[in-house]
Parts: sequence; structure tokens; C-alpha cells
Amino acid sequence: MTRLEPAVALVCGAGSLPYAIADAAVQRGRTVVLFAIKGWADPERVPRYRHHWVTLGKFGRWRALAREEGCRQVVLIGGLVRPALGDIGLDWRTLRILPRLARCYRGGDNRLLSGIAEILEQDGFEVVSAQELAPDILVPRGAVGGVPPRATDLADIDRGLAVLAALGPFDIGQAVVVCDGRVLGIEAAEGTDQLLGRIAALRADGRVATPRGRGVLIKAPKRGQDRRFDLPAIGPATLSGVIAAGLGGIAVLAEAAVMAEPQQLIRAADAAGVFVLGIEPTGAHPR
Amino acid sequence: MTRLEPAVALVCGAGSLPYAIADAAVQRGRTVVLFAIKGWADPERVPRYRHHWVTLGKFGRWRALAREEGCRQVVLIGGLVRPALGDIGLDWRTLRILPRLARCYRGGDNRLLSGIAEILEQDGFEVVSAQELAPDILVPRGAVGGVPPRATDLADIDRGLAVLAALGPFDIGQAVVVCDGRVLGIEAAEGTDQLLGRIAALRADGRVATPRGRGVLIKAPKRGQDRRFDLPAIGPATLSGVIAAGLGGIAVLAEAAVMAEPQQLIRAADAAGVFVLGIEPTGAHPR
Repeated sequence: MTRLEPAVALVCGAGSLPYAIADAAVQRGRTVVLFAIKGWADPERVPRYRHHWVTLGKFGRWRALAREEGCRQVVLIGGLVRPALGDIGLDWRTLRILPRLARCYRGGDNRLLSGIAEILEQDGFEVVSAQELAPDILVPRGAVGGVPPRATDLADIDRGLAVLAALGPFDIGQAVVVCDGRVLGIEAAEGTDQLLGRIAALRADGRVATPRGRGVLIKAPKRGQDRRFDLPAIGPATLSGVIAAGLGGIAVLAEAAVMAEPQQLIRAADAAGVFVLGIEPTGAHPR
Repeated sequence: MTRLEPAVALVCGAGSLPYAIADAAVQRGRTVVLFAIKGWADPERVPRYRHHWVTLGKFGRWRALAREEGCRQVVLIGGLVRPALGDIGLDWRTLRILPRLARCYRGGDNRLLSGIAEILEQDGFEVVSAQELAPDILVPRGAVGGVPPRATDLADIDRGLAVLAALGPFDIGQAVVVCDGRVLGIEAAEGTDQLLGRIAALRADGRVATPRGRGVLIKAPKRGQDRRFDLPAIGPATLSGVIAAGLGGIAVLAEAAVMAEPQQLIRAADAAGVFVLGIEPTGAHPR
């Protein structure tokens, strides 16, 4: 049997998305090697795959392992919180690229990830997107699941998209919560789960007093962001957060957001009466 | 002795700002009557002034009392969380204006407050700003206190102002936290104290890993907002939040933000090495 495509290195942070992508890639006949980041990747799930545990700051060791495994393509996937540069134990190769890394640290996540991708490519790797490896994880256009959005939801979605478009130049969050025309929360460094937790808390202490089942979580990529990584993602934790926050649904830009464990997500959303919508791309939010 | 100016009705929500304004107005020779909103105004401080306790939704009673007291001018001041319309016990007059109120509920705080002001003015009251009554509470231009901002702080302030300008059309929050060029948090419905609490939590769990003493809280009015009410405010609680979040300073648009208890605030800021800056107005953020 001829190996048509080289192995792909999946650098895994937190969350369930890395395993959904690994499974989908294997199903498509790819050879996958997980490089699981200590402290972030799930120690329960990693051992089911061919893998190496790696440490942030040991870039030289990672590069040697990836070459040994014959990986030419690299996918960066899953949550990762930027540690203080001074807290990372650095190997020699990492020290050499440190000035460039430090420059990427000034700014948002997209800048940091683009900087890392550039360094990888100068070393001869090809950085590819998770969706290239596993196109099935992209959220399609239209209602996903059986609950449709209402007209007020569509108005809230438009407003949310306008807010995200306005924030595009600043490399900030990709998520916003809008209810009855009022912007309740905007994601910055805290992430979507915390944003949703905040809305639930505002509701609990009476500061958000709209009836349950109204309001939408809207997610879209940043304008001009490198879509090879850090696409907006939704998964079971997102849905739980939306339900706890008393919102009516989730809307993400179609074909520009990824869904971990889609079957489970759709079943749970339908059961809770929460809509999940893939928004048609527009001028401000192109494909 | 002739009374030159009619009494002014101070409708008081939460926080210490209403009393700072009442004191300043009395010192300028004005007669002040507090209309303290039950559940929001401070029951310890209200009784020191001529006052009536009022309930949200009893607009007819408020109007009768304000006329009886000879109040022609009204100031709306202090924090107030919008309750569910259905939770408010309504009197007859309020029921009549309810359709208009309900429309104002769809949208941000500025829209709601502008709507209420319009209703008051149709009833013959003049809605004036807190700063007209007490100009001393406006934050002046330049460094307030003894700690100057550094060059990196000024860059963060510019970025924060740009984010607030971009959000201007959406009637959202007036505050943002920027550190080393990265936008850490944006205020929406949760208010500044919670925004700062979130940054402190992100720092505690390692998600913000910059050294303490870096980063700025930036506040400015919304573009086109009615500056008669809800100007950005800073006070002792803001300073405590900034210190707990490990930030380097506070920057507000000069002459467009108010400061409760300025002497205390400046003393405490100097002691903590935190700068407080009145930003020069610009095109995007005019006077």
C-alpha cells in the first residue's frame, strides 16, 4: 500500500475539538500524530491516538519529533492560554525565536498564532487548517437541528454581526450576546464560556430581566483573521452555557465556524428548544 | 431673601455620586430635594438630605411630589439596573406612558434614559446634567494626582479609545481594559466593577500573565450619547477594582467623565502608584 499523503502533526490544546478532528482525519485515510501540550490537552483522550506529550517552550524538541514522524503538515487546534513568557522553560531553538515570539505577544490571539505559523513555515512545515483536514466540522448554512430562529432573533443576529464587524480591526473576541436589540456582553480575553457565565449571573441577580428563551450568542471570525486557526468554535459546553444564560439560540457564520461533536450538540439543542444557525455570509462577513 | 433658582429634584440610584452632587449643589446655593429610588439609593446617606423615597413605576406619585416641592429641574444620577417591566408595580400615570417606556427598553441605556428624559420634559420638567449642577465633579485635562502615565500606557489608551469609538453606534458600555496593546475586556451590560473583577480573575487563573502595574482602564462617553446623564463615572470602587486587577492606571475623557469623592480618590491613587488621567478630547471623542 502506498502512502499518498504525509502524516499530519496535530498540536492539541484544551477542549474536545482536537479529537473530533483527529477522528475525522483518520476516517479520511490520513495518518495523524498528536502533539499534546502538557497542562492543556486532555490526558484521558490523548493516549487513544499516536501521540507525544510536548511542553511549551521546547520548540526544538517538537520540531525534531515532528520530522522523525514524517509530519510535513501541522494543524494548531484547541484552547490555549498564553502563559507569561518568563514562566516557560525554553530550549535552545525556542530561545533563538524568542524575540519574534515576544513581538507576537503584543496584540491579540490572531497575531500570536499568525506569528507562530510563520515561524513553522520558515522551518519547512505547512500549516493547514482543521477544516481542511476535516471539512465535516464546518457549520453549514441554515438551521442546524430542528429549532428555527424567530424574526426578533434575526434582528439580534444582525446587530451582533455589526458589533463584531466594528471590532474586527482590534483582534479581540469573536463572540457577542444580544437580546432584544441590547448588547449584553462582548467577549475579549475571557472566552465564550465565561461570557455566557456572566450573562447567567446578570440574569440571576436581576440585571438582565428579559424572559428566558430570548437572546442570541453570535460568533464570527475576526475580519482579516488567518482562518487556518482559531476559527470560532461551538460544542457541548457552548450549548450548556447558552441554556444556563437563558438565551434562545446560537448563530455562527456558516462555513467559517467549527462544531465539535455535532450530533450530540444538535440532539441536545433540539431537546432544549435552542436554535443553532449557520448565518449566510455577507459583505461585512464574507466566506 | 429672594430664591433665585427653583429647587432641583435629584433622582438617586445607587453609588456615592448622588451625594457628592447634592453637596456640591447645596454649596453653590441650590435647594436640593432627593428622590431616592427604593432598593437602589443608599438608606444610610439619603436621610441627611431633604428627601422622599420613591418606587419605580409610581411615576404619577413622583410627579405630584416634585411639583409640590417646587422642583422644575430634574437630575437623574447614580446606578440603576433596569428591572423587568412586568415586575414593576405601576400607577395610573405610568401605565399611560408604558408603551413609550417599553419602546425605550429595546436598546441600550442611553436610549432608555433619553426616552425617560423626553417624557419628563413633556410634563414640563427641565432635565439637566449632574455636571451643570456641580461642575467640580468633571475630571479635568491632564494627570489628576501625582502619578504620570508612561509611553506604553498612552499607546494602550489610544487603542482603548479606538475600540470605544468603534462601539459608539451600538449604545454599549463606556469602558475597556487594554494592556500592552491587547484588549483584555470590554464592558457591556455588566458595568465597570464587574469588568475589573473579571480582569482580576483572569490574572488569578493565569490567563492574563503580564506583570502587575501594566494596563489601563479607559472610559469615555458613547458617541452621540445624551451627556445630561450616564456620563462615565469613576470613584473609590473603580480605583479598588483597578488595583485588584493589577492595572497601571485609569484614563477618562476630560470634561466628559465625573469623579465621585475626588480628594479621596486622588489620595488613594497616589498611595497605590496608579495614574488617573483626563484625556484631551479629539475628533473621535470631542468635548
